[in-house]
Amino acid sequence: MLFLLSILSLLTCQAALSPVPPDQIFQYIDDHQDEFVQRLKEWVAIESDSSDPTKRGLVDNMMQITKDFILKIGGTVEMAELGEQELSSGKKIPLPPVILAEIGNDTKKPTVCFYGHMDVQPAKKSDGWATEPYTLIEKDGNLYGRGASDDKGQVLALLNAVESVNVIGLPVNVKLVIEGMEEVGSNGLDKIVEEQKDGFFSNVDYIVVTDTPWLSKKPGITYGARGNCYFFIEVEGARRDLHSGGFGGAVYEAMSDLIFLLDTLIDSKGKILIPGIYDDVRSVTEEEKELYKDLEFNLDELQADTGAKRFLYDTKEGLLMHRWRYPSLSIHGIEGAFSGSGTKTVIPAKVIGKFSIRQVPNMDPSIVEKQVTDYLEHKFSERNSPNKIKVTMIIGAKPWLSDMNEPQYLAARKAVTRVFNVNADMIRAGGTIPIAKNFEEVLGKRVMLLGIGGPDDSTHGQNEKISKYNYIEGTKLYAAFLQELASV
Amino acid sequence: MLFLLSILSLLTCQAALSPVPPDQIFQYIDDHQDEFVQRLKEWVAIESDSSDPTKRGLVDNMMQITKDFILKIGGTVEMAELGEQELSSGKKIPLPPVILAEIGNDTKKPTVCFYGHMDVQPAKKSDGWATEPYTLIEKDGNLYGRGASDDKGQVLALLNAVESVNVIGLPVNVKLVIEGMEEVGSNGLDKIVEEQKDGFFSNVDYIVVTDTPWLSKKPGITYGARGNCYFFIEVEGARRDLHSGGFGGAVYEAMSDLIFLLDTLIDSKGKILIPGIYDDVRSVTEEEKELYKDLEFNLDELQADTGAKRFLYDTKEGLLMHRWRYPSLSIHGIEGAFSGSGTKTVIPAKVIGKFSIRQVPNMDPSIVEKQVTDYLEHKFSERNSPNKIKVTMIIGAKPWLSDMNEPQYLAARKAVTRVFNVNADMIRAGGTIPIAKNFEEVLGKRVMLLGIGGPDDSTHGQNEKISKYNYIEGTKLYAAFLQELASV
Repeated sequence: MLFLLSILSLLTCQAALSPVPPDQIFQYIDDHQDEFVQRLKEWVAIESDSSDPTKRGLVDNMMQITKDFILKIGGTVEMAELGEQELSSGKKIPLPPVILAEIGNDTKKPTVCFYGHMDVQPAKKSDGWATEPYTLIEKDGNLYGRGASDDKGQVLALLNAVESVNVIGLPVNVKLVIEGMEEVGSNGLDKIVEEQKDGFFSNVDYIVVTDTPWLSKKPGITYGARGNCYFFIEVEGARRDLHSGGFGGAVYEAMSDLIFLLDTLIDSKGKILIPGIYDDVRSVTEEEKELYKDLEFNLDELQADTGAKRFLYDTKEGLLMHRWRYPSLSIHGIEGAFSGSGTKTVIPAKVIGKFSIRQVPNMDPSIVEKQVTDYLEHKFSERNSPNKIKVTMIIGAKPWLSDMNEPQYLAARKAVTRVFNVNADMIRAGGTIPIAKNFEEVLGKRVMLLGIGGPDDSTHGQNEKISKYNYIEGTKLYAAFLQELASV
Repeated sequence: MLFLLSILSLLTCQAALSPVPPDQIFQYIDDHQDEFVQRLKEWVAIESDSSDPTKRGLVDNMMQITKDFILKIGGTVEMAELGEQELSSGKKIPLPPVILAEIGNDTKKPTVCFYGHMDVQPAKKSDGWATEPYTLIEKDGNLYGRGASDDKGQVLALLNAVESVNVIGLPVNVKLVIEGMEEVGSNGLDKIVEEQKDGFFSNVDYIVVTDTPWLSKKPGITYGARGNCYFFIEVEGARRDLHSGGFGGAVYEAMSDLIFLLDTLIDSKGKILIPGIYDDVRSVTEEEKELYKDLEFNLDELQADTGAKRFLYDTKEGLLMHRWRYPSLSIHGIEGAFSGSGTKTVIPAKVIGKFSIRQVPNMDPSIVEKQVTDYLEHKFSERNSPNKIKVTMIIGAKPWLSDMNEPQYLAARKAVTRVFNVNADMIRAGGTIPIAKNFEEVLGKRVMLLGIGGPDDSTHGQNEKISKYNYIEGTKLYAAFLQELASV
């Protein structure tokens, strides 16, 4: 019903204002904000939790609703099937299809392809939510609900923008890749990208991911992400777990060896102790330093949010550079040792220490692998333990770094200035964004991350939200971006 | 049916041979060994797994069968009720009663009280057993089945011995404390011991635990056990788990601090690095050294059994002393960190490292607690981390050491020589035996551990067994012990 009203009002608007001057698009968006919020409410209501096989039908339902919406705003949609997912039980269930959509196909215009996803993380009120997670609630300027920020709100802001700009005609061709399995690892997406390289993606000029947060209330454009080299150190002692009463004092314990090895990795100041590990880290340029000066970032807020009493670096630049452009090493845990509550007097036979190195340009995972392995094996041989170790790199995901002077970055920066009257924060992600690296490597196209999430949206956590400001002004940002992209 | 035959043969035997000279009791035991094995088969067949609430009825059943058997060999039995056990679900189920039994009550004779248990560890064929765990199978001189050694076989050997000696009349009064919750922590037993201090236990002269293994094929008498000080080191960093992508390089990670602290505890040779920890360890006397010389113990066998490639000490004396009479420290695991298979890029917010020190006379748990806490807090303050630590001693169980020149030890040593024609191995347990310490502390009586298990019985593991040799010769050992005890 509301949707029909929206179409009617669009037609009315188009009739009255065509051609609408650029800034009137912002007015149009402001005028329709209640309707945009209502749309988000309807989308959030669908529990499209991809991690729960019993909710697969709801993910499919969500994909269908997204398809219908794209059709109604003038697009064409292909639902690319991905086959089946095998559950750990051995049962197979269908994967949700990937939406490959197109709005406009004028060969004289540039083509921008946006990526987003319609599935969400699990959420139950009993997890500690203040409100029902699948009922969008507006409170104190925020829109609370699972998926409100990650990623339904961001995709919908983009679609609202496309619809709004389309009132006067899109100056670029828009393509959309929207999946339903992002939260569990984007099952099957790689295959579609590979298959459609010379099909759907062949005429794409720019790729934009709409699934990222800003660093602050100021809009941020993400141009890089760290990689991840994830290691297992397996130490094998006895053939079976032993009782610490009967064998403590007699055997070389695998846990002592592992604790020793893990303790050789990093010092108390967060410095990685593996020789050569910093050799290939790109130097900071003067231009790069300049970028950090303007970033809006408050250490006190981060402190309040995380509960950390002190950070490893006490300046904005120091902290952000070590989150984004320097490597870090984190010890995640140990498999095979006692991990329950209470007490158990076991000498674990085989333990696997798990740590990862977030690596950065120009570090190479295969070199990191050799440095780590050589170092740990050397340290272990010095210890003269009769136990056996095996060091394995389980993940070797490369970092991603784009060129922020490419056209889509320039267009996005202009769009930010036009909508917000500030210079965009040029930011990076500390984590790994496999999809960015994958789009670049497979398609050979430059990728930009232009999301509209806030830094405190609690995506994946309780009380996820998007601020109404980010949602509505973010819609304007996407609208402005589409217009600026036509003229760069 | 077999039981009736047994009683008939007993009566026949008593009529024909009364009074039976001592060595004829051994002959009697040899003559009845098939019947003794059959009894064990019937007891093993009852899945009296105390860890599984759904099997509680089978534990009760086993207690009832034991009671009936004691009645039939001439005892009187009181079933001491323990009340209820509250399960983690909140549901309450009855605890099995404790058997308090008496065979003979001649005030002119000494009274010996034996302790054993009728419950068993869980076992399923699918755990990796070669045969059905609850079907006693005789193969290559061994009797395989859950509980065959721990503890049904040992209790039954004792009862067989009591029955056999009783053919000519018991020279001592025998009391029995038999419980059904030993494998899960002897719930309620302490209470019974406390309550019956001036009742059932008031006339007891000696306490003997029949639930221990020998060190080798040669019989061993256990006169000591190490204590256990179990520690938690809690390190608290951020308020919530953080993503290693977003926060690696920015925060002081709780895991790095914990790994550092755990690595300060022990060196690569098993030496505990906590200052003062060895100060109160009793010196080795010449007399004690002598005891170790005669111990039958083979390092190669232990190596084959455990799969350890090398031990911390390469002599029999060095190894056994460090299992029994020197302290050891084992790191058991970490709670709160990632412990699953696979990869997770988490920076755990709060982690709890778990380790324990097996301590020995004359170490005092309260001194150990202070030494450990002071040391770790000092090490942590040197590290200058903003995270918080809390060191807690969760268990502070004292070591136990008896006097091997007390009458029941002399009687047991004589009995070993009589049955096996060797000197008994005087041994200790590396683990903690709370019941020994508890009997001594509450009742003020000396305790001895005289079990008949083999060192390779795989109690708690797959393919538990007792050798037929240990079971039958062990029956003779208990018979001889009852006789020797009357004359020391």
